[in-house]
Amino acid sequence: MKISIERAALLKAVSQAQSVVERRNTIPILANVLIEAEGDSASFRATDLDIEVVDKAPAQVERAGATTVSAVTLHEIVRKLPDGALVQLIDDGASGRLTVNAGRSSFSLATLPREDFPVMATTEYSANFSAKAPELRRLFDKSKFAISTEETRYYLNGVYMHVAQGDDGQVLRCVATDGHRLARVDMPLPAGAENMPGVIVPRKTVGELRKLLDDDEMSIAVSVSETKVRFATPDITLTSKVIDGTFPDYTRVIPIGNTRRMEVDASEFAKAVDRVATVSSERSRAVKLSLDEDRLILSVNAPDSGAAEEELAVAYGDEKLEIGFNAKYLLEIASQVDRENAVFLFNSSGDPTLMREGNDTSAVYVVMPMRV
Amino acid sequence: MKISIERAALLKAVSQAQSVVERRNTIPILANVLIEAEGDSASFRATDLDIEVVDKAPAQVERAGATTVSAVTLHEIVRKLPDGALVQLIDDGASGRLTVNAGRSSFSLATLPREDFPVMATTEYSANFSAKAPELRRLFDKSKFAISTEETRYYLNGVYMHVAQGDDGQVLRCVATDGHRLARVDMPLPAGAENMPGVIVPRKTVGELRKLLDDDEMSIAVSVSETKVRFATPDITLTSKVIDGTFPDYTRVIPIGNTRRMEVDASEFAKAVDRVATVSSERSRAVKLSLDEDRLILSVNAPDSGAAEEELAVAYGDEKLEIGFNAKYLLEIASQVDRENAVFLFNSSGDPTLMREGNDTSAVYVVMPMRV
Repeated sequence: MKISIERAALLKAVSQAQSVVERRNTIPILANVLIEAEGDSASFRATDLDIEVVDKAPAQVERAGATTVSAVTLHEIVRKLPDGALVQLIDDGASGRLTVNAGRSSFSLATLPREDFPVMATTEYSANFSAKAPELRRLFDKSKFAISTEETRYYLNGVYMHVAQGDDGQVLRCVATDGHRLARVDMPLPAGAENMPGVIVPRKTVGELRKLLDDDEMSIAVSVSETKVRFATPDITLTSKVIDGTFPDYTRVIPIGNTRRMEVDASEFAKAVDRVATVSSERSRAVKLSLDEDRLILSVNAPDSGAAEEELAVAYGDEKLEIGFNAKYLLEIASQVDRENAVFLFNSSGDPTLMREGNDTSAVYVVMPMRV
Repeated sequence: MKISIERAALLKAVSQAQSVVERRNTIPILANVLIEAEGDSASFRATDLDIEVVDKAPAQVERAGATTVSAVTLHEIVRKLPDGALVQLIDDGASGRLTVNAGRSSFSLATLPREDFPVMATTEYSANFSAKAPELRRLFDKSKFAISTEETRYYLNGVYMHVAQGDDGQVLRCVATDGHRLARVDMPLPAGAENMPGVIVPRKTVGELRKLLDDDEMSIAVSVSETKVRFATPDITLTSKVIDGTFPDYTRVIPIGNTRRMEVDASEFAKAVDRVATVSSERSRAVKLSLDEDRLILSVNAPDSGAAEEELAVAYGDEKLEIGFNAKYLLEIASQVDRENAVFLFNSSGDPTLMREGNDTSAVYVVMPMRV
């Protein structure tokens, strides 16, 4: 293999690869990126056996070929090369070394044979559709905070992406929950997604996917099977196993009879919660909401460190209510609101509370109260 | 006590206090800041028993008095208050609580009696002088990287500030070393510093002092005794014990007979060292410098991960030389150079190397070589 490639294109491709690679692993080749050069491009493939990413970059290929080198080391080198450098990658096949040349710098990196690199088996996908990057970004950005980190409840360690019945017809829906709070975010169902099986997209895949979604104009090709999901742009293909488990019936958790309605400026609300929570104990982080005629009092009472209280003007016309929450959960859902006021729908102080943005039901959040 | 104070002024005062307070300590009152209000100002005092900082801020004092509250909690609260808020601090003396009011927020914090707060004993200072903030900043900024972190060599855990004989008369000098590298930085001796005893200023004090030195126009009043050092601006007084030990005779370490002279662009040099060090082993970080007629070759050879080489154009007219260094040490001293080229003076590959900026001898660095 002998190729020349622009530093910027190489950096982009290798960045994504090194981020998929697990820092600590016992199988040496999993630390490597597989470089394959042919025609007028080079592809960079990395995997942790659950996720595989392939980045394609334009390259001048003088001699086609393939090899594998440490993804982290190659990334570090390319990152430190000067802007605008042209990078040459040469592997003569015999020495077991990849030479990296740029300007007056020259590196020689240990390689492992390409034959040892585990390439993910191909799958028959049962649904193929495309979606705009900003739409997918919204689905995952607004739901991922609620993903559980409890390893024993592995079926909650991801975002449940599936087809559901929304208020105005079928939707593509993402749901995540950890048992304390839940996020449910919808977008109009893209053509071709009708028969998509519901899949639980693992947390790490959600993180890697995010990097494909920055470009507002980009259209993302999505393919889904019972066991795998694939997201692709013209240059990058991200394939991931999905979590082999059953996502619980979340619809039971979403309250429908909550009638006590509070409307509040989300940013003012978040700042006030953050302030009063300063004195709350590290462990409980409990904040009490006391509601009465257009008035919300947030309060914390921690015997050790002190007490705090703040009043906020809100829209509230129902009966008096006192209800407690974990401040962290309130802050996280309030920060999902970006256009309108936050609308909270309460039932009693022991029941789950629903939050949404204005009257928009395409993203709703549920949070369990706590005794205060 | 009952006072009103601008949020910005309060934040500045409390920031410095909470930074001196040790996060984990067994004496509860050391977590607190002592607030004393009288006349038209309030002072905020914090200590870890080795360092004491007192910040003064203008305040409307309605009722004079004093109390102590958690520095970290008060800082967190003030930080989260909106810009421009007027903050009221009220302590009625009986409840054991300090009330903090701002807008519609109200906090009640546990207090401890002012009598329990350990105020640092006053000292007779044997030298008092003043210096411009940028001058002191240079002294400490350019030397602190070489402070040792080895607790057993406690006398190296700070910067040795003393009066010395420079090339053009007496200087105020800061020296730090960890046995592998050494920094020696001079400034013209300020009037009044002639009889200053040499003191070892602890690492933490150097860090706290740094915050007083940001304002280029500020003049800093420095007072030194055998056991303490004090730095003061009109608003802030930082008093610190000095390290009770003898700084080793560093002059023996600074080579005087090094004649092989290399001149190099410091930034190009640092970037090249950083690049080739990418493949060096985590532990040794060894980089080899090979010098020959205006040419420097930097190289690393790590059996496991690979090899790297980079050539740099330098000014060098002496005999061929090969010498190895820890990449981290080279990077740190190269980053001290800000105006001119770095000048390295070598002797043999086993001898300490000297580095300075151009022909300026007011800041010199010594670095020990390593076998490569």
